[in-house]
Amino acid sequence: MAHAIVEYTDNLGPEADIKGLLVEIAKTMAETDGIFPVGGIRVRAIKLEDYVVADGAADDAFVNIEVRMAAGRPEVFKEQFFDALFEMAKTHFAPIAAKRFFALSMYVQDLPAQSYKQNNIHTRFA
Amino acid sequence: MAHAIVEYTDNLGPEADIKGLLVEIAKTMAETDGIFPVGGIRVRAIKLEDYVVADGAADDAFVNIEVRMAAGRPEVFKEQFFDALFEMAKTHFAPIAAKRFFALSMYVQDLPAQSYKQNNIHTRFA
Amino acid sequence: MAHAIVEYTDNLGPEADIKGLLVEIAKTMAETDGIFPVGGIRVRAIKLEDYVVADGAADDAFVNIEVRMAAGRPEVFKEQFFDALFEMAKTHFAPIAAKRFFALSMYVQDLPAQSYKQNNIHTRFA
Repeated sequence: MAHAIVEYTDNLGPEADIKGLLVEIAKTMAETDGIFPVGGIRVRAIKLEDYVVADGAADDAFVNIEVRMAAGRPEVFKEQFFDALFEMAKTHFAPIAAKRFFALSMYVQDLPAQSYKQNNIHTRFA
Repeated sequence: MAHAIVEYTDNLGPEADIKGLLVEIAKTMAETDGIFPVGGIRVRAIKLEDYVVADGAADDAFVNIEVRMAAGRPEVFKEQFFDALFEMAKTHFAPIAAKRFFALSMYVQDLPAQSYKQNNIHTRFA
Repeated sequence: MAHAIVEYTDNLGPEADIKGLLVEIAKTMAETDGIFPVGGIRVRAIKLEDYVVADGAADDAFVNIEVRMAAGRPEVFKEQFFDALFEMAKTHFAPIAAKRFFALSMYVQDLPAQSYKQNNIHTRFA
């Protein structure tokens, strides 16, 4: 079970290809030999329309990725996997970061202990 | 003080009756003999319009409920209350889960220690 | 690096001046002698269009502010800074709280240990 939420400022425009990023994140998670079961992958975007970045003086843009997953993945896996995921995100936005003020961030944490789930999507991959 | 945020994919359509779910969650919280003071209940939905679920190949849908409350409720209450709340949510979505790929999740956690509040809604229930 | 997310119910209308609040939050964070580097400030709003507050019987409104920052700021700074920030928010909404049912809350927490960032906005303030 893995959740990713991608917040992005709407001044990025279509060049940011947010849908493409969501597809890449989901695909990267799916290619982990079952460490992230495919049926549990849920990646979504939130478009931000109202924001103030830094001193508010420039057309600054940002993308913030929050990842939450059930506890229990080995620390060494998490470090390697998310290092690679962030490299992928940096590559995705490299053309944008090369020409405008842009901040990219990603935060990874475990889901709370008190969790509930029901999911029939897993049956498609059983 | 209890917060609930219901994220839902917009491919669910009106059959999901998200507003009905919000009403049910708020009502269930209100019927706890003051453990969740009525004036502090804040339940809201976030409609997701951009997402990739599982392998992205099917019209998968999901609902994710995040609950946050001030620390201090007894563990036994939290277990019983949220078990029942999740059963209610499963019942709410049973017709949908019976006919399409659908994932439902709920995560419960305490609010941070550094919290601030001002709320005159409580005066209506004093 | 400081993130703030302001959720607000859309029944507040334009009188709430949410954009003005975002500007005030960003400005307050910027005036901390570098404790919050200006280039890392990211303040945004989420408009809530679907919600149930308290018993759902009245036109209750709420604003919820979530602040997340990299760990390491001194506790005494955090207490003083966020006490003042919340006072500012209360003042901002005082005309609204004086005439309708309204709840204001703010939660402050550190970002997860597993964090990633790339940010060229800092170069503008170097």
